[in-house]
Amino acid sequence: MFNGWSRKVYLELSAPSEEDNRADSTRVLEAIGEREEFARASVRLGIAALRALDRVCRESEWKITATLGYDGDGWEILRVEPGDTTECHYGLCADLGSTTIVMEAVNMQDGSVAGSVSVFNPQIRCGEDILTRIFYAKDHPEHLEKLRLAAVEGLSQAMKELQRQTGICAEDCAALIISGNTTMIHFLLGLDAFCVFQTPYAVHTLAPEVYRASELGLSMRGFVWCCPGRANYLGGDIVSGMIATGIPEREGISVFLDIGTNGELVIGNRDFLVCGAGAAGPALEGGVVKTGMRAEEGAVDAVKITEGEIRVHTIGNARAKGICGSGIVELLAELFLNGWMDLRGKLIPGVSDAVFEEEDQVKVRYAPGLSFSEQDIQEFLKTKAAAGTMVEYMMNQIGITMEDVERFYVAGAFGTHISKEAGVTIGLYPDIQRERIVSPGNTSLNGARELLLDVGKKEYAERLVEKMEYIQFGAVEDFVHLMGAAMAFPHTDIERYPSVQEELKRRGRAL
Amino acid sequence: MFNGWSRKVYLELSAPSEEDNRADSTRVLEAIGEREEFARASVRLGIAALRALDRVCRESEWKITATLGYDGDGWEILRVEPGDTTECHYGLCADLGSTTIVMEAVNMQDGSVAGSVSVFNPQIRCGEDILTRIFYAKDHPEHLEKLRLAAVEGLSQAMKELQRQTGICAEDCAALIISGNTTMIHFLLGLDAFCVFQTPYAVHTLAPEVYRASELGLSMRGFVWCCPGRANYLGGDIVSGMIATGIPEREGISVFLDIGTNGELVIGNRDFLVCGAGAAGPALEGGVVKTGMRAEEGAVDAVKITEGEIRVHTIGNARAKGICGSGIVELLAELFLNGWMDLRGKLIPGVSDAVFEEEDQVKVRYAPGLSFSEQDIQEFLKTKAAAGTMVEYMMNQIGITMEDVERFYVAGAFGTHISKEAGVTIGLYPDIQRERIVSPGNTSLNGARELLLDVGKKEYAERLVEKMEYIQFGAVEDFVHLMGAAMAFPHTDIERYPSVQEELKRRGRAL
Repeated sequence: MFNGWSRKVYLELSAPSEEDNRADSTRVLEAIGEREEFARASVRLGIAALRALDRVCRESEWKITATLGYDGDGWEILRVEPGDTTECHYGLCADLGSTTIVMEAVNMQDGSVAGSVSVFNPQIRCGEDILTRIFYAKDHPEHLEKLRLAAVEGLSQAMKELQRQTGICAEDCAALIISGNTTMIHFLLGLDAFCVFQTPYAVHTLAPEVYRASELGLSMRGFVWCCPGRANYLGGDIVSGMIATGIPEREGISVFLDIGTNGELVIGNRDFLVCGAGAAGPALEGGVVKTGMRAEEGAVDAVKITEGEIRVHTIGNARAKGICGSGIVELLAELFLNGWMDLRGKLIPGVSDAVFEEEDQVKVRYAPGLSFSEQDIQEFLKTKAAAGTMVEYMMNQIGITMEDVERFYVAGAFGTHISKEAGVTIGLYPDIQRERIVSPGNTSLNGARELLLDVGKKEYAERLVEKMEYIQFGAVEDFVHLMGAAMAFPHTDIERYPSVQEELKRRGRAL
Repeated sequence: MFNGWSRKVYLELSAPSEEDNRADSTRVLEAIGEREEFARASVRLGIAALRALDRVCRESEWKITATLGYDGDGWEILRVEPGDTTECHYGLCADLGSTTIVMEAVNMQDGSVAGSVSVFNPQIRCGEDILTRIFYAKDHPEHLEKLRLAAVEGLSQAMKELQRQTGICAEDCAALIISGNTTMIHFLLGLDAFCVFQTPYAVHTLAPEVYRASELGLSMRGFVWCCPGRANYLGGDIVSGMIATGIPEREGISVFLDIGTNGELVIGNRDFLVCGAGAAGPALEGGVVKTGMRAEEGAVDAVKITEGEIRVHTIGNARAKGICGSGIVELLAELFLNGWMDLRGKLIPGVSDAVFEEEDQVKVRYAPGLSFSEQDIQEFLKTKAAAGTMVEYMMNQIGITMEDVERFYVAGAFGTHISKEAGVTIGLYPDIQRERIVSPGNTSLNGARELLLDVGKKEYAERLVEKMEYIQFGAVEDFVHLMGAAMAFPHTDIERYPSVQEELKRRGRAL
């Protein structure tokens, strides 16, 4: 049994008699109060459960199962069913992303994932990226309402799809824990998110209350809680990631880097947590690159240069339609290691037929009809440098070096799909033992699941937020200086990348 | 300032700055947490207030008033307004009667009543009296839903009418406290009330939770709480009456009698409270009497016999259409004192032209075309005897006599309008000093108001219910015996009524 946000309790009640004619509600509440787990808790009987009580008790000869949800302070009986249904007990958790909403039905008895679905965020209708949506909603309450409804629609779609796949009635669940960045949570709550973007970055809320699902417009019995965030650009998705990775509990220092729309960074251990965020996102995911695309069918996701030829792998083994983040990283690593591109990101004309000039730009053809230009490379280099510089700058501030770092986490889909070796080669990752580089997957979702399974983690998350020291990178001169130095593959200071030097030497290509 | 269920707090917040960019929600919650009254309380920011916060704060340069409602455990900010609106602060209380719903808007600053309205309970459509409604709803969920909606409709009408009369927006109120009998509360919550009527009288609930008004279908921002009841026939209206009269706090013993649809009785003081209920109602209100009617225009409400003539007063000085409770009591007292009726309720033929025989029945004409028959008198006598016997039986059980009783309360409209003297003459009231007989008015409503003005009284009411010992009168042999003795005006044991004996002697009419 977990200490989860949803509880099911089987009760064998005595039927009313002349000697014991307590009211039904008293009978149920007293029986629950006798349970160890609710002995010191406040428990109330919700109106829907109260209305069903009569029928359910009589139907089952007073043997009933009560489902309780946690409202942040106490428990509410949300549902009563005839007989013992404690075996069938699920809760929901979700990662509310700007592109994708991932939702899981979690077995509240053993903590296992009973089903997982992923749907596109319908907010995309109102704007492909977050910034477009923020401007779309600004000063237009009706647009904001559209975004809110789209978030609700996305969550509802995910619930329906979960039910279709698993047979679990998501609407009957007593709890839904959501992780998302500050903007996504603002939209879900119906709050204008322009504050996220505008100085002094005082947002409307970073610590949403536990709401009744119905208050948010969700057709679900239970309660909804969104993991609290630390700042405008450091939202509940990252705090949730802390919970998922356990970084704040370990002695060893970790670096946690989440590359998505923005780059979000936390460095710390059980003694300290420093965090910050910066624009280090879209280009790495293929957003700014001309033939870049999402990791969908037909996207080049792996690249090798052998015998002077570029060979690619595509998702679904389909005809190449573009290149996604992991493909870009491998492409650049291969171009660099094979001497097709120098450390400044300049393509070397003549090294291969694949490198050619078109419209005053040098480009490399990585698949029939698809090429990657020096301008694309520069875009990528800039964001790679930004991400790397955030890490370096923050480590300097803390006064540690990469040697002090036990684990280097690269969260999200990006971290999951990029080859570690290629990541190091182009200087996106530091040159450390490869086992210290960890791809923890969707830590936003994983953290939400951990929160769902333990009500105690609500307070933990709230304390965690207070512990996190937020650094504004902004226009620090030092930052700009460091970033200039990082504008190379893997770095202008190649001494930091001994394993890349080694590989170049092996290939007979000393710098 | 009262410790009420609704609070208004004026806050002068600092605007966000680079140095202090706390989220708006944090800014508000921290400012409220600094107030003495909320220092140890749990306070949450409701979704509606959160959504309005941005606009309200900017509009008012961060000088806002927050309205908080009590949810039974903690506080929720339900509304924010620009500027200081603490002077305009109202809560609602209501007496949910089967015939009439009375609602008040209460000034939460000084406890005064800002407005009071009374509307007919629309449930009358589904049945004139409670028992008809109980059978109407039994096994017909759609009928039950109709009754529930009618209760909501009645409360909503009252809210609208209050607003029309006072300008106070009832929907903006943070709290509504309702007192009503167990059946009325069942219907409001959407619960079948057949249990109220059927052994073993285990009802669905006697202690409703604090609900969000919206959960009950009421269009109102705040929370609704119904005063808890003690038993099927001893509901929240009587518990509320205890709070209104202060009986459970005083050293002196009180008798509390509420005559409505049923007769409800509590005897006690700060050391004990014994209660019970019985069928002692409708006849006293004119329900069973042939020309009986409610206390409306045209109802005879006062009667005098002078110089051998019956003179009556009608409500609104209109043409007499029937007779209401207070009229009946005065009529019977006058008939008895003037020797037109004997102590067994037999009319004396020949004593006046007004006494006549018709269809084998002796009747008395009290107004043109309107008469009161011996059968009517017997009905009245039976219920008068039942009420008196409840009191006597319970006093015997406790081991006290009327001399031990400091105050004899007759609650409700009945007690308010009946002449004390006439009440004693016919033996409805005991023959004690008249100042010990108290008509406290609508104690159900008054108690609801006291609850509204003090959140601490919620727990007090809950403890009170536990303290009240409930007696089932039912088929106790002793009870039947005592009732036989009470079947006379004022009583078969005339020695109990020395002042009536005195009056008869004065009139030269020794028994």
